[in-house]
Amino acid sequence: MEFEITKEYIDRLKILIAEDNSDELKATMEPLHPADIAEVMDDLSMEEAKYLYLLLEGEKASDVLIEIPEHDRRRFLKVLPPELIASKFIEYMDSDDAADIVADLDEDLKKEVLKEIEDTEQAGDIVDLLEYEEDSAGGIMAKELVSVNENWTVATCLKEISKQAEEVDEIYYVYVIYDQQRFKGILSLKKLILNSTNMKISNLYNPEVIMVRTGTRQEEVAEIMDKYDLVAIPVVDDIGRLKGRITFDDVIDFVREEAERDYQMISGIAGDVEPDDKAWELIKARFPWLLIGLLGGILGALVLGNYEAELNSVTELAFFIPLIAAMAGNVGVQSSSIVVQSIASGVKDMDTTGKRLLKELMVSFATAAIFAILIFIYNFFVMNNMELTLSVSISLFIVMLYASFFGTLIPLLLNRLKIDPALATGPFITTMNDILGLFIYFGIGKMFFEFL
Amino acid sequence: MEFEITKEYIDRLKILIAEDNSDELKATMEPLHPADIAEVMDDLSMEEAKYLYLLLEGEKASDVLIEIPEHDRRRFLKVLPPELIASKFIEYMDSDDAADIVADLDEDLKKEVLKEIEDTEQAGDIVDLLEYEEDSAGGIMAKELVSVNENWTVATCLKEISKQAEEVDEIYYVYVIYDQQRFKGILSLKKLILNSTNMKISNLYNPEVIMVRTGTRQEEVAEIMDKYDLVAIPVVDDIGRLKGRITFDDVIDFVREEAERDYQMISGIAGDVEPDDKAWELIKARFPWLLIGLLGGILGALVLGNYEAELNSVTELAFFIPLIAAMAGNVGVQSSSIVVQSIASGVKDMDTTGKRLLKELMVSFATAAIFAILIFIYNFFVMNNMELTLSVSISLFIVMLYASFFGTLIPLLLNRLKIDPALATGPFITTMNDILGLFIYFGIGKMFFEFL
Repeated sequence: MEFEITKEYIDRLKILIAEDNSDELKATMEPLHPADIAEVMDDLSMEEAKYLYLLLEGEKASDVLIEIPEHDRRRFLKVLPPELIASKFIEYMDSDDAADIVADLDEDLKKEVLKEIEDTEQAGDIVDLLEYEEDSAGGIMAKELVSVNENWTVATCLKEISKQAEEVDEIYYVYVIYDQQRFKGILSLKKLILNSTNMKISNLYNPEVIMVRTGTRQEEVAEIMDKYDLVAIPVVDDIGRLKGRITFDDVIDFVREEAERDYQMISGIAGDVEPDDKAWELIKARFPWLLIGLLGGILGALVLGNYEAELNSVTELAFFIPLIAAMAGNVGVQSSSIVVQSIASGVKDMDTTGKRLLKELMVSFATAAIFAILIFIYNFFVMNNMELTLSVSISLFIVMLYASFFGTLIPLLLNRLKIDPALATGPFITTMNDILGLFIYFGIGKMFFEFL
Repeated sequence: MEFEITKEYIDRLKILIAEDNSDELKATMEPLHPADIAEVMDDLSMEEAKYLYLLLEGEKASDVLIEIPEHDRRRFLKVLPPELIASKFIEYMDSDDAADIVADLDEDLKKEVLKEIEDTEQAGDIVDLLEYEEDSAGGIMAKELVSVNENWTVATCLKEISKQAEEVDEIYYVYVIYDQQRFKGILSLKKLILNSTNMKISNLYNPEVIMVRTGTRQEEVAEIMDKYDLVAIPVVDDIGRLKGRITFDDVIDFVREEAERDYQMISGIAGDVEPDDKAWELIKARFPWLLIGLLGGILGALVLGNYEAELNSVTELAFFIPLIAAMAGNVGVQSSSIVVQSIASGVKDMDTTGKRLLKELMVSFATAAIFAILIFIYNFFVMNNMELTLSVSISLFIVMLYASFFGTLIPLLLNRLKIDPALATGPFITTMNDILGLFIYFGIGKMFFEFL
């Protein structure tokens, strides 16, 4: 049922490519779905993939191009002749995919490709779509849709659909418009099928339709379509003219990509890497956050250097450095991730930032108190050193309190400033909290041992 | 366009509920989408929500029930009379939603509810669906679909569809079968509309259809539907009989839930919480991983206690405890998250576990070397203590190497053992690596200061 790529399969392809056996290769690719061909190409060298790709024709070639992961596609398009991109691939694509691919090209190549597109309507659609912000509804919608006039009958409608349908791969809804493309509502194919041919459309369509504007942010579009389980959503401009539609597959991709990005952020990976990627790409992706960790560690060493005298006289203080650091890190990551996830999943609530911080303060107060008491009990019975026992407990309490507070505050602030709040998760918050934690711990420790 | 819940709106509802003004409440709920009503109920007390809910009728009531978040729904169903659940709500639902809700009930209530369902076909469908594993294609599919015989004409087909269509909310495809429900292929409504009424179905349908079996795992279903951008996928049994269909909205929910679960795991949050949840729920969700952090910290203190003599004579060793711990933690989280994400996104590659570990070893060897050199340079110029400089650099190198190795190995092992690999991300791997890191650091430090 599903196509599975084996090592033998790839090896056979590599041999066929080396032998320049294009007939056999074409026959092999023939039954494959474009998504599968893209996967196969991923396992070939750039030169082999290019060879294979140029054997594909028409719609299949353009469908495969869409399925190639973005960063591979960029490299791939660079080795293809520009006139090929324009005339052979872009013309067959839906406008949203075509616009995405054109948007990705370098300025010069972009102009060249646009000029080469013979289908004026397609070229016009692409240029229109490129006008919108990349992450707005306008930037992700497709112009291809089937629209009918509210004054038509079912019969006229069916005739018109058969004319328009060629361009549109999947018709989920028929969009009903009047005068100058003003959007009125949607009509399901089911309704068209189930009603007599002389019925007027105005009696059949559903005017209560959830729609978005061209300027609506991508996140919000995904959230709305997910919430209302919509297979497609109409996009209108500010005066209500129907401009395009966005389909469910864009939502799935968006949800997945957002989740992956947040996950990479919290795990300290820069960029989209997989275990299969080249070793140097994996190293590059890990480097930035490790460097932050290193700098944080050096800062930590400087902080501790300041307290050398205390460490010298009370060695036991050093024992609890890892505990303080770990708890500060864990609490910080917990707090920041709860905030980031609630922002990402589009939770809209009536809580204001202030109210949320207050609650976080309550929660972390209780949590910090519990753990301060636990470590107090342990140290009281094990360490036999009241100054140390008190220093550790009180520090832990304060450290957990502020780590949690910052973990909540910083992503909220970033979000207000329109900066990705996920930046404040993972290694960043851990490193910051580590250093502040050491300051607090030794500050309090010094106090206890000097004055008690 | 989209409905927005304001504090004023909720307050008004609360007053209407307190006044027992059911007419006004019904009128207020009338234009709302079920998903919006569920959101409104979320902002009311349990008693208020129940009052509001019982005002809803028929399909709307059942649609709202589906939209309520799972853990709220469970609490909610407990306060509803069982005969209401059966006769008023379950009967209106699609079989997949009905089965989900029935599966969630306590054993006794489940039997009672099933007995009360008057529509025998619906009751039968639910019982059938409950037979399948919860996370298999059979467990998530709906039985409602429109099927036609390959020997019919388009005209017969349209007649049959109008009969079946009442039960099915959205028809994405018509499923073509022959003798005994054997599945032949799919037919788009577009094709039905665009062809003459006396054309035979066998000439129109697409036999090359991607489908899954009832036993296919949910992850794989989501992966296939995402990869091939399918709006619905047919589910067949082992002898090819059509059993149901799964639609795109299930995939979106699944992708989102999986991503949230992995994110919670890496951020050390136990369970599905949001900033809006009650304070004690937030505390409970944070507790388990913080406890692990505390125990790890205590273990760390014990390790350091073992090296009290070394700490006493070389206080500077303490300075780099945070550095070693932070780098071990960061590297471990990076490695484990790359593995977990590649497992979650269903990356199928030809690399074996052994090959992957070898590559990870190469990558971490290079990374560890870079950072060992960086810290060597820093310490060489700043600390002016060759034993310390060497101890820190060599320890960092070894710690990063093993942290990365374990971070890769443990999730792979868990996955082999059918345990969720995400368990090995976040606080777990950080804590483990912290402790081992301290052992290595002080072991090496001791060696240097004793023998050099």
